[in-house]
Amino acid sequence: MDDMDEVKIIEIKKSVFADNEKDADALRDELKRKGVYLLNLMSAPGSGKTSTLIQLLNRIKDKVRVAVMEADIDSDVDAVKIKEKTGVPSIQLHTGGMCHLDAEMTRQGLDNLNLDEVDLVVLENVGNLVCPAEFDTGATCNAMILSVSEGDDKPLKYPLMFTVCDLVIINKMDVVPYFDFDLERCKKYIHLRNSQAQIIPISAKTGFGLDHLADWLLKQLP
Amino acid sequence: MDDMDEVKIIEIKKSVFADNEKDADALRDELKRKGVYLLNLMSAPGSGKTSTLIQLLNRIKDKVRVAVMEADIDSDVDAVKIKEKTGVPSIQLHTGGMCHLDAEMTRQGLDNLNLDEVDLVVLENVGNLVCPAEFDTGATCNAMILSVSEGDDKPLKYPLMFTVCDLVIINKMDVVPYFDFDLERCKKYIHLRNSQAQIIPISAKTGFGLDHLADWLLKQLP
Repeated sequence: MDDMDEVKIIEIKKSVFADNEKDADALRDELKRKGVYLLNLMSAPGSGKTSTLIQLLNRIKDKVRVAVMEADIDSDVDAVKIKEKTGVPSIQLHTGGMCHLDAEMTRQGLDNLNLDEVDLVVLENVGNLVCPAEFDTGATCNAMILSVSEGDDKPLKYPLMFTVCDLVIINKMDVVPYFDFDLERCKKYIHLRNSQAQIIPISAKTGFGLDHLADWLLKQLP
Repeated sequence: MDDMDEVKIIEIKKSVFADNEKDADALRDELKRKGVYLLNLMSAPGSGKTSTLIQLLNRIKDKVRVAVMEADIDSDVDAVKIKEKTGVPSIQLHTGGMCHLDAEMTRQGLDNLNLDEVDLVVLENVGNLVCPAEFDTGATCNAMILSVSEGDDKPLKYPLMFTVCDLVIINKMDVVPYFDFDLERCKKYIHLRNSQAQIIPISAKTGFGLDHLADWLLKQLP
């Protein structure tokens, strides 16, 4: 497990700032001045954030300078996997049990990247559909992955997450035949929460939809 | 949608008690004196808590007096579904955005049931693998559902949840052929967190393992 040693692990400290919204706006402005696009990627546990990222990074890494921050309560399996499968610089943020990241915690991660040398930073947030939606990380874009196996009713049950996301990626489209999942119904529920949300169905397993997702993301960059 | 009106919806208030552990122990003692077994059922979003409950309730409802409390951030689809599909008394707890339940919040729900007339109360907690694990609800037994589609590595990534659970139900066994999920590896990871954890694989869709789960639960009751 030599690769484990090569991934930098940052122990994230609890924020001391009281006004996260103000702090998040300041971080967003700072990133804009530096020409860095920060994508905050959220989802429930097991919806395929890391495997989607691997597919996505391999499609964009030659077109844009990208780095990844993997937030996890404890393990470092994700950052190791990203580095192994894509070669993209990846650091691990340990939240020490905390269920979300806010702007100050995101900044602690960004301090470990050289922002002059990246155009895009992807933050893989803690696997949780509740708390991460409540805290603005200062990201340029909020995105989330809903997987087919979780069910098409999730926008009804986790309203805030779907409200704050500019992009909803629907993953595991390859297993639609084995689940009671109606894509059109799901899209309708998502648009009830956020009529502007971009919805992109994919399969990180087969690669379906990944070119579309990569194109969409590249077009957002300044 | 007449059924919607028949389900009692309780708006849960934030707790004022500072010492949740003490409060949880007090609630557990009180329930023991009354002969009520409280099962706290946790999982990630979309792992199949409600469909598992429907299968389970239909197997035990003639053998034991049971009631259900469905905690959700917002919607009431689960309590309606439970009532329709099983006839078991079910109330909905609205957490108003809160990501977990603690003992006092659980008590607010129990106050709406007649505890003299039930042997078993199932609390379906908020879909979240992080926060609910941190708060003792006062339950007699903590159980969680991990679904095959979430991946067998979840005990590594959400350690506390697997540590606090006496029972881990592995759901969606019917889709094992379509996912990279190794049951033996998963069992090993679970037992790393909690060597005493009972592990029961099921499929809420096909009914596989549900008789075993029902038998196990009935044996726990006083």
